[in-house]
Amino acid sequence: MNLIEQLNKSFDNRIRLGIMSVLMVNDKIDFITLKHMLQLTDGNLASHISALEKAEYIKVHKHFVGKKPQTTYSPTAAGKKAFNEHLDALEKLIKRSK
Amino acid sequence: MNLIEQLNKSFDNRIRLGIMSVLMVNDKIDFITLKHMLQLTDGNLASHISALEKAEYIKVHKHFVGKKPQTTYSPTAAGKKAFNEHLDALEKLIKRSK
Repeated sequence: MNLIEQLNKSFDNRIRLGIMSVLMVNDKIDFITLKHMLQLTDGNLASHISALEKAEYIKVHKHFVGKKPQTTYSPTAAGKKAFNEHLDALEKLIKRSK
Repeated sequence: MNLIEQLNKSFDNRIRLGIMSVLMVNDKIDFITLKHMLQLTDGNLASHISALEKAEYIKVHKHFVGKKPQTTYSPTAAGKKAFNEHLDALEKLIKRSK
């Protein structure tokens, strides 16, 4: 298979790469923490989270901490698999380019 | 600096990653060969080449082979530098995700 086809279009965007990268090592993370880690605006983070949720690569959990609503995000099994495959394809591309 | 900012937006798209990857190891390549290597349509390849040319990451050479016009592409020094920095940032992201 061709190198480009092995790369997952859902992860083309560098913000989505950043979100998935954080979720691979933090299995559950809230919106504010994620936003600060990636230094993004609310709107920018929300739109890319929504794209990854639509692809079923991340799960959104809404719950209450006391009376305060909190939203956390986790990667799905399919999301972890797809992201690992994407990273493998990127590694191949890096090797071929050097 | 934040991980996402180290990634170059010009290389977000996987087709552009593929084009630059090929140019890093083939310093001069013609349109048809590049198209076949990446298994792309004419339009798809042309639009991404044009974006990379606009960013001054690749140079376009038009010349004649006998009476036949031929177009070849080469990476610029700035293109090689920017792509190598992008690959370094991707490597960091891969390491952090595993």
